[in-house]
Amino acid sequence: MDDAPNNEHFTLTPIGHVVSDYPDKFGIPRQPGLAPAANARLVLTAPYNDPLAVRGLADFSHLWLSFIFHHSPERWSPLVRPPRLGGNKKVGVFASRSTHRPNRLGLSLVKLVGIDTQHGVTLQLQGCDLVSGTPVVDIKPYLPWAEAHPNAQAGFAPETPSLMAVTFHPAALASLAQRQDSATLLALIEQVLSQDPRPAYKQKDSDSDRLYGLRLRDVDVKFCPRQNGEATTLEVMAIEPYAE
Amino acid sequence: MDDAPNNEHFTLTPIGHVVSDYPDKFGIPRQPGLAPAANARLVLTAPYNDPLAVRGLADFSHLWLSFIFHHSPERWSPLVRPPRLGGNKKVGVFASRSTHRPNRLGLSLVKLVGIDTQHGVTLQLQGCDLVSGTPVVDIKPYLPWAEAHPNAQAGFAPETPSLMAVTFHPAALASLAQRQDSATLLALIEQVLSQDPRPAYKQKDSDSDRLYGLRLRDVDVKFCPRQNGEATTLEVMAIEPYAE
Repeated sequence: MDDAPNNEHFTLTPIGHVVSDYPDKFGIPRQPGLAPAANARLVLTAPYNDPLAVRGLADFSHLWLSFIFHHSPERWSPLVRPPRLGGNKKVGVFASRSTHRPNRLGLSLVKLVGIDTQHGVTLQLQGCDLVSGTPVVDIKPYLPWAEAHPNAQAGFAPETPSLMAVTFHPAALASLAQRQDSATLLALIEQVLSQDPRPAYKQKDSDSDRLYGLRLRDVDVKFCPRQNGEATTLEVMAIEPYAE
Repeated sequence: MDDAPNNEHFTLTPIGHVVSDYPDKFGIPRQPGLAPAANARLVLTAPYNDPLAVRGLADFSHLWLSFIFHHSPERWSPLVRPPRLGGNKKVGVFASRSTHRPNRLGLSLVKLVGIDTQHGVTLQLQGCDLVSGTPVVDIKPYLPWAEAHPNAQAGFAPETPSLMAVTFHPAALASLAQRQDSATLLALIEQVLSQDPRPAYKQKDSDSDRLYGLRLRDVDVKFCPRQNGEATTLEVMAIEPYAE
């Protein structure tokens, strides 16, 4: 090994920040691409907001974003409990995408929808799963011939999570109807709730009719599990503006 | 944006270092997976070398490594010249995988071949394109259902680079025959040279019969371009032990 000092470290400066429909962590789909209706843009920061730095980027359909889980604690743990395993089995942190990891580095594959270079640089993204304010430290183009391995073996998370049925109470639909963005907001709520954002240990508890709150865009979405025989659906009860 | 201070920064500590068949940057294939014969392992550093931290990782076939281009200068430039474009067209640094990027962060998809937890943690990798000594800052499992997009559009690098024919001079074959690792070293040399490691501007120069040197494993590989009508092949002239 030609150099491996023990107290080596590297400093990262964000190249930009995400502005998204996710004001909070709670409810964000656990992988990118699962809620395409979410609005998101990446606003580059000076001096990285030079239009030259994104020349040719529009010819790529997908991008990798490297970012910092800035809301996560700096402590890490060797074992984590992935929601996919019901929250009660532990796997190694490096076998997971958990936020409780050394260096708090995240990696997200997003669709590039547009690039605005009128004032600095703003990238319009689809399928972005990042909380608003997330510091982004790198952008790289996606190379399908090097990075698409459809048959890769994927341990405890071998396929897309199954979707949960989502219904809307008439009161919730009435609130939606009054908004200009009713169509995209309805789609976003459906996509986010169908991932079942409830904590894993609550998903088992079929008797609970607890009311949950989730913030999306500028609203508070109140929802409730409903038991129909074996199946659980999530019903959106109310959609209300939220106060900071 | 909930927080975007201008002088925000984050400190990364390596979780481990790569030990590979690539003592130098020159000649390393420009994307991972192109030279599966290269030996590589990732040796985790304390306190990250806890066997618990990789529990369940063996069930994944592919891993993402986030690492630092530690041999690259810290200065970045908004425009770079990708070798794929012959080295004379410029694209934005964020539309490239260039090492001359802000934060010097690299991302590499590698195959996981084995995990040794006898003394700390060592991961055996295949297709790793990292120079020996590279500091790794994160490991994440590859999730095919989220990350395999075979039809993604990939700008100026739409497909696997074409391969160059490689031949061996009898003197080079004689040196190889004396080694215990002759089979894997031959494969490695073939895989690396078939990517044409010559600088892009030299690849155009069909009259040159310059002798190039490339270090792989513990040898110096001397090779030379040969013109056969329209086609160029690379001939391995000598394989010699190198001195540090």
